[in-house]
Amino acid sequence: MKPDEIKWASGALMTDQYQLTMAQLYYRMGLHETMAQFDHFYRSNPDYGFHKAGYCVNAGLESILDWLDQAVFGPAEIEYLRSQKSATGGQLFGDDFLRWLGHDFDTKAINLFAMPEGRVVHPNVPIHVVEGPLAIGQIIETGLLNTANYQILIATKAARIKQSTRGQVLMEFGLRRAQSLGAIAGTRAALIGGADFSSNVGASHAFGFPPKGTHAHSMVQVFMGLGEGELAAFRAYADVYPDDCMLLVDTIDTLQSGVPNAIRVFEELKRKGHRPVGIRLDSGDLAHLSILAAKMLNDAGFPDVSIVLSNDLDELVIWQILTQIQEEAERYGVDPEKLIKRLVYGVGTHLITSTGDPALDGVYKLVAICQDGKWIPTLKISENVDKTLNPGNKRVWRVYDQRGKATADLITLQGEDILNQSPLELRHPTMATKRRSLCREEIDHVEKLLVPVILDGEKVYESPTIEQMRETRQKDIDHLDPGVLRIMNPHIYHVSLSAKLWDLKQSLIKKARDENSVEGGM
Amino acid sequence: MKPDEIKWASGALMTDQYQLTMAQLYYRMGLHETMAQFDHFYRSNPDYGFHKAGYCVNAGLESILDWLDQAVFGPAEIEYLRSQKSATGGQLFGDDFLRWLGHDFDTKAINLFAMPEGRVVHPNVPIHVVEGPLAIGQIIETGLLNTANYQILIATKAARIKQSTRGQVLMEFGLRRAQSLGAIAGTRAALIGGADFSSNVGASHAFGFPPKGTHAHSMVQVFMGLGEGELAAFRAYADVYPDDCMLLVDTIDTLQSGVPNAIRVFEELKRKGHRPVGIRLDSGDLAHLSILAAKMLNDAGFPDVSIVLSNDLDELVIWQILTQIQEEAERYGVDPEKLIKRLVYGVGTHLITSTGDPALDGVYKLVAICQDGKWIPTLKISENVDKTLNPGNKRVWRVYDQRGKATADLITLQGEDILNQSPLELRHPTMATKRRSLCREEIDHVEKLLVPVILDGEKVYESPTIEQMRETRQKDIDHLDPGVLRIMNPHIYHVSLSAKLWDLKQSLIKKARDENSVEGGM
Repeated sequence: MKPDEIKWASGALMTDQYQLTMAQLYYRMGLHETMAQFDHFYRSNPDYGFHKAGYCVNAGLESILDWLDQAVFGPAEIEYLRSQKSATGGQLFGDDFLRWLGHDFDTKAINLFAMPEGRVVHPNVPIHVVEGPLAIGQIIETGLLNTANYQILIATKAARIKQSTRGQVLMEFGLRRAQSLGAIAGTRAALIGGADFSSNVGASHAFGFPPKGTHAHSMVQVFMGLGEGELAAFRAYADVYPDDCMLLVDTIDTLQSGVPNAIRVFEELKRKGHRPVGIRLDSGDLAHLSILAAKMLNDAGFPDVSIVLSNDLDELVIWQILTQIQEEAERYGVDPEKLIKRLVYGVGTHLITSTGDPALDGVYKLVAICQDGKWIPTLKISENVDKTLNPGNKRVWRVYDQRGKATADLITLQGEDILNQSPLELRHPTMATKRRSLCREEIDHVEKLLVPVILDGEKVYESPTIEQMRETRQKDIDHLDPGVLRIMNPHIYHVSLSAKLWDLKQSLIKKARDENSVEGGM
Repeated sequence: MKPDEIKWASGALMTDQYQLTMAQLYYRMGLHETMAQFDHFYRSNPDYGFHKAGYCVNAGLESILDWLDQAVFGPAEIEYLRSQKSATGGQLFGDDFLRWLGHDFDTKAINLFAMPEGRVVHPNVPIHVVEGPLAIGQIIETGLLNTANYQILIATKAARIKQSTRGQVLMEFGLRRAQSLGAIAGTRAALIGGADFSSNVGASHAFGFPPKGTHAHSMVQVFMGLGEGELAAFRAYADVYPDDCMLLVDTIDTLQSGVPNAIRVFEELKRKGHRPVGIRLDSGDLAHLSILAAKMLNDAGFPDVSIVLSNDLDELVIWQILTQIQEEAERYGVDPEKLIKRLVYGVGTHLITSTGDPALDGVYKLVAICQDGKWIPTLKISENVDKTLNPGNKRVWRVYDQRGKATADLITLQGEDILNQSPLELRHPTMATKRRSLCREEIDHVEKLLVPVILDGEKVYESPTIEQMRETRQKDIDHLDPGVLRIMNPHIYHVSLSAKLWDLKQSLIKKARDENSVEGGM
């Protein structure tokens, strides 16, 4: 991309055209500064086809704040918008609206409440809540969704893959298959969600992590092409990187050539006082090959060097590899648990693209509008009852049970005294007969989930480090029921409405249906 | 993303760490300026699960050239690399190598041959060929793959979706579900591959297209929340945009409320001398609703206004909608062909993420290295015979038959006189028994596919406009056999090797196996 292309497409104009046409309409109707509330949430956990997520990991907030800072309609943006033509050749955007956009559009005019990054999040629970002038809230929809949806998607996939590794090191390897500059946000989200490192040099540096990587098949091919062999290639690598010697052993034949040659080089390194780091397997039956490679390394006196696995991995493939190792390793005299503890994973395509479900269905919906100082809940009724909005100005809570596990997320109206309600009533969001009642004794504590980020024109939130976001993630994951964590067929985590919100939603649905049937003449 | 994060991650450091560690090794071995050839190609057409592509559309070259211009190891990059530490705390990259990187790394030192953007491309046929100093060719691998793989993927998806619309206008709507800044390249690729317009304001402007869009459900909700109704919302829109009036009719009830209200507003507009543009349907049974909406519009005297369809569309969904319209429309007194000709499509998620197959398996492989002025083909033998490289310095041709259709892409060695060979022998890339012989009379013409882009330090290629790339695409698609174009179960297009290349490949495989069995002691 040309720097100019990036500049045009990553600032205030990182929006959909209809946000601007609507904003001009609001301006003309005198509604542009009417206060409105928009909720960002997603409707369902990623479904990868034959497996699906039981939870998501939040990511993107700091990037949203960065974008809001850059979302300024400067003279160049205004000039461009002035040049847009209507069908009959006139100016599409009038000078009056453009003046407002250039002078009064200020993303600091919104109040933003959000879930911190790294938190476990669930469907239909607001993750970002924007309260602000209608036209501003509308224009920022696209940039907010673009940023949050992708980062949550990738952080979630990374969390699942990390979970499947049983705590071993996970490296993000996807830059070559990533979506152009999307790789920057993808790497960030992977680091928040579960990747320990990335091979992406620039992004790793930008986010404060050392990039990881050693060599590719091409290096061995070079030496072979020049009439030398794999062993010469390995020796050269060990010469240049005696203390970081990680060798890719599958260019010719993993067990016949790669591992024996690696062992020779490791022995030479050891004699010179260096500690070899590991081998990488990038093709073939990774479970079987890692067992046999481990055996050869053990027999040669290298029981501790790492075995890095890569090649089209995802959470299911890793799970399968570990299952196979547990079933097969002992037959070869290899301790499966020790082998599993020396494995390291490099995951490319399937992490950075979230193969199977490459988009989170996150939406940003108008839920309330303020008239004469009073908030009016708005509602879009959908034929699909699950898609009917939870209206109004809301608060979000997480309820922990006596095991210390999160048992439900509860959405209430603003001002409800949840902490002192007993019993706590939890209503299913769409089914009238489904409800739960929790008495005080069953509840360990209730936690408020949304924190203020921008308030009264000021940023009141300090972004944590990625390291801290990871701690948040781990803590939240530890609070999930094992059934919700399951990679296949997870339990459905409860997302509930308070009785008051339930009643409001039902009354609004009824009102809208009544009005509609009058208007429609049914 | 912070501007600094984008800067770090989009310049020379948009690479994998191992490219740099390998480059330093080549430097230390005195191999960094050894001439090498790398081929970029992809192995298989996108497979979306229950349907797959029969061809791809090339895109990305101009963005690759942009990136090569930006890939400079300036003082900041060098300083950062100098700070990287080995496992024992020393400098990972030595000052000698960093001096070379800062002073002598120049992407203009490569020769680049490429397929122009918009061309139809096929598996295993080189799309970009890099010939240059080994260390430079290696370092640019990641950026080239990142740029080309994603754009080819999205251009291909756009071409398929455009094909399914039967030539109607296709709008790219995916920014909210795109991969952060990946949306810029995604929009570009969509515009090359088949989208006529995009809703993405900044990217549309950057690439010279007017962005498209009108209003969302939220606008209707605002008016409803304030006690006015859908009709008031539509009237407001028509007031502000009398000549661009496109109304979203499914916020309440498409047929009971949305379409009748739209018709009232259209009648008002017509009386004032304006031409209404259309309606948009964004939920429900789009085939059925578009028939009934068309009937209502026809009856009201608006047989020409557009009907825009959106909501989780892809090539199969559109195909199904059109099939249903053809079966069902006449029953309602609507001419199906006329209806199909007034449809317009907005496609979001499934286009920008290439749902079903979110990554192209494009690779960049060392195929030859120059020693003492002589090119030596290199080979990586894979256990999977389809993945064994086509070695050496090659040329690529497209063979057209007497129908004027492309019948095969032919990969030859450099210097083969294909134009005067008769009969032309086409070998299957992996199966010895599969071959075709084409005599002169069967061949209309043979076309050279790769054009020089960077040669002897100069850019010798002028990028065409996106409009020209689209013409190229259409021309190439018109040259495909209808079977190859089929959306489901396409015919496999022939990609063949010349007899000489086939013989070279076989002899190299044999040689590598012999050497390997000696080394491996089999």
